[in-house]
This record gives sequence, C-alpha cells and structure tokens, in this order.
Amino acid sequence: MEPSNTSVVNLTIGQYDLVYNSLSFTIAAMGAAFVFFLMARTTVAYKFQRVTEVAALIVGIACYHYVRMFMSWTAAYTHAAGTTFYTPTGELFNEAYRYADWLLTVPLLLVELIAVLYLTGAKRAGTIRNLVIAAALMIVTGYPGEVATDNTTRFIWGVISTIPFVYILFVLWTEVGIAIKRESPEVANLLTNIRLLLLASWGVYPIAYMMPFFPSINAADALVYKQLGYSIADVVAKPLYGLMIYAIARLKTQQENAASPDGALVPHDDTVASPNSNAI
Amino acid sequence: MEPSNTSVVNLTIGQYDLVYNSLSFTIAAMGAAFVFFLMARTTVAYKFQRVTEVAALIVGIACYHYVRMFMSWTAAYTHAAGTTFYTPTGELFNEAYRYADWLLTVPLLLVELIAVLYLTGAKRAGTIRNLVIAAALMIVTGYPGEVATDNTTRFIWGVISTIPFVYILFVLWTEVGIAIKRESPEVANLLTNIRLLLLASWGVYPIAYMMPFFPSINAADALVYKQLGYSIADVVAKPLYGLMIYAIARLKTQQENAASPDGALVPHDDTVASPNSNAI
Repeated sequence: MEPSNTSVVNLTIGQYDLVYNSLSFTIAAMGAAFVFFLMARTTVAYKFQRVTEVAALIVGIACYHYVRMFMSWTAAYTHAAGTTFYTPTGELFNEAYRYADWLLTVPLLLVELIAVLYLTGAKRAGTIRNLVIAAALMIVTGYPGEVATDNTTRFIWGVISTIPFVYILFVLWTEVGIAIKRESPEVANLLTNIRLLLLASWGVYPIAYMMPFFPSINAADALVYKQLGYSIADVVAKPLYGLMIYAIARLKTQQENAASPDGALVPHDDTVASPNSNAI
Repeated sequence: MEPSNTSVVNLTIGQYDLVYNSLSFTIAAMGAAFVFFLMARTTVAYKFQRVTEVAALIVGIACYHYVRMFMSWTAAYTHAAGTTFYTPTGELFNEAYRYADWLLTVPLLLVELIAVLYLTGAKRAGTIRNLVIAAALMIVTGYPGEVATDNTTRFIWGVISTIPFVYILFVLWTEVGIAIKRESPEVANLLTNIRLLLLASWGVYPIAYMMPFFPSINAADALVYKQLGYSIADVVAKPLYGLMIYAIARLKTQQENAASPDGALVPHDDTVASPNSNAI
C-alpha cells in the first residue's frame, strides 16, 4: 500500500503556509480545550464528570496527532532561499495520523453524546456498541481510499465508508430527536443546536475526502483544501462539540441542583454554580 | 551480543508506515489512558485507588517507551525522494525498549489483577511474590533470544522463557477462576471476560516472538509483523485490561456503597456515585 501521492507536488508559499498555520491553530485550540475540560470536571454533577473527562481525552489525543502532523508537514517540504515554491524533501507527509486519531476519538465522541443523553441502562450500552462498531468500520474502510494513488480506489473505499457514516449520523439524529422531546426547553434548545453542529462538522469530512476527485482542482490545491477542511472539521467536531456537551451537562446539573437544594447530586456543593451563575 | 538483525533490511513505504503508525497510535492510546486512570482514581472506593494508580503507572511507563521506540524507528530508516523504499541509516532500531518496558510493567500488571481479586492478606502477598519473580525470569530470559542473530539461540531462550510464561498464565487463570465463584454475578461476568482478554493478549507475544521462525515470511515482513503484533498486544494488555480492572473496582465500589449507605467504605462519600449513576 502506497501512501498518498499528495507529497510529491510543489506548493506555493501561500499554499504551504495555509496548511502549516491551520495545523498550528488546531494544536492551540485542542491544547486549550484539553486544559479547559480538565478544569470543567468539578463544575458538573458527579454523574456528568465522565462526560467532561471523555471530552478532555478527545481533544488531548487530537492535540497529540496535530503536533505529529505539524512535524510531518514541516519535514515533508523545504523552501530554498529566493524561490517562490516549497518542494518535497523526500520525507512523506503522513496522512495516516488523521485516521489513527479518528480511530481513537470518534468512538469517544459517540460515547460522549450518548452518555449525556442516557445516563444508564441497556439501551445506552446497545446504542454505544452499535455506533462504535460502525465508527471503526467507517474509519478502517476510509483509510485505504485516502492513501490510494488512483481515484477509482479512492472512490470505491469512499462509497463503502459512507455506509457506516450515514448509519451513525442517522442513529445520532434519531437519538437526539428523542431526547429533545424528553428534556426541558433549555436542554432541548442545546440539543437542537448540537444536531445541526453534528451535520455541519461531519459533512465536511466527505467533502474534504472528495477533493482529489474534482478535475478543475489541481493536485496542490486538492492537498491544501483537504488538509484545511479536515482541520476545520476537527475543531468544530471536537472542542466546539465538547463545549456544547459540557453546556448540556452544566444545565442539567443546575436543574437537578435546583430540584434538590441539599446538593446531594453534586460532589462538592461549593464547586457547583447556583442555577443562575451560568459562567461561560 | 549483537542487536537484532532486523535493522539491516530495506522496507517498502507501506511496511515502514505500518510500524510507524502503530507505534504512534500506541503512544496516543497509552497517553490518553494515563490521563484517564489518573482521573479515575477518585471515582472508586479508597481501597481500590491503588489499583487505578498502578493502571496509570503501567500506561505512563509504556507511553514513555513507545515515544522512545518511535524515535528509534524514525532514526533507523530513511527515505530518498523518488524511491519506493526505506533504507537503513546505520542507526539500529532498539528492540530492548520493549523488554525494559515489560520488566517494569508486567509485575505491575500482575499486582493490579491480584490486588483487585484479594484486597489483603498473606495469600495475596505470596501470590504476588511468585508471579513477580516468574515475570522477571520470563522477560530476562526472553531478551537474549529477541536480540539473537541466529534462530537457534532465539529458539532456545524462547523455550526457556515460555516456562515462567505458562506458569504465570496458569496461576492467573486459576486465581481468577476462584474469584469468579466468590464474586457477584456482575463482577464474575467481568472476570470471565478479563480471563479471555488475558489469554488473547498474552497469546500474541509468543506469536510475535516467533515471527522470524517462519521460513515463508521474509525478514522485512517478520520485522513488521513482530512490531505490529507487540503493539496490538500492548494496547490490549495495558489500557484495555486496565479499563476492565477499573470496571471491576467501580462495580465493587457501587455494591459496597449500596450495602453501607453511610459511605464508611469510601474516602469522600460525596465523590462516589450512587449505584444507579453509572456514567461512562
């Protein structure tokens, strides 16, 4: 299996810098989110703390992979003084980091959402199991297409990978829809937004994957747009999505706190905000 | 003593990348598990906190060694622009990192399991002592075979190393079997799974060790499959196994908490969940 042929084209300084800066930006966003979610842990009821921990792990793992991708990117290209181009060094940009990242983080993203929707029970366990299997299938079948050197192979694996992709989105859409009917108006509002965010962020991945298919986009542009698209989608799907999940956990904590003012549901009643001190 | 002869063969880009990516994936998995087990500490009864600490140390040590192995791997091979091969640089890939890692982590893995089975007593101390001695023998006798340049030496040390290996698995199988009869159905179910996980993950190590024996597998493939096999086995035997041990500690915490609602068994009664708040 050959790695992506995307490393063998020259890039303009602008093209190189766009990927370079979007990778670095994403490192900063993931790192900051990691620290935030670690601190956010004690601001929600005990039963929601696992959700903030999972959110921290997701962005922590992504931060690691973006550091690696940044190093791989800078090793893959070199700029000779006086020229207007970056040329390949021979080191290959390792596209597989994204797939290794998704293999770890996508199951955790699914766990995070289902955990905030259903706290316990067989329903939750069954839904998570199905989604995790589908996620693994989606990523494992997407990878051979990503590193393929011809577009036919890319297309076939892309179509196969889309089947579990659509299944996951369908299940999430339905499950969130059921939760919207069950929850209070404030939580329902957040869930409506999270459902749109899921569609918007997940929708970017297939578009980025399809970049090399467009005949009007040259190889260098396809490479750049693909990396940029994946980076933007990751920022939306990990830290931003985590913040929304956290907002739900916090709102539910406040609601349950208000319902039982003795604070029995929360670990340290002094670390949890009163219902109207909604920081962030 | 010569280091492994595995560093002197050319690798295809795909072969090189498979090891490269499996080492990086394992760094991410170990690092994330380290953060998780540190956070998990306060979610179990005080008497189980040592178990989550040991789980954190195991994956932390492994994370360090995988970072070192990744550096050793990238230093050992180089890719010249335009070629489809990675060639050895002269730096030798250091196989000994795995044995240094196991010398520290395997005794801790044994302590972790026995500690969750028996909380105190002479029985526990004696079992742990025997297992730790066997583990040290297993690893110390496996190493000369691993770095041997001829398969006869590899075979002899492999056989010697298998004796303590089989002894350890036999003791664990028996001890877990005794615990299964003693524990509640839920804990017994987890222990049944952990016993299968032990067999499955530990079983991979001798198979990976034996890779250079198969005449139909060329030297490059044997090297790649061995590294891949060890990495997969480590992910299963350390973070995944730790998660199952953690699940047992958590279930026992909840059961004991339910039995004594005054929370006397736990350090901070407000940080431990009620039996039905099984988040994550």
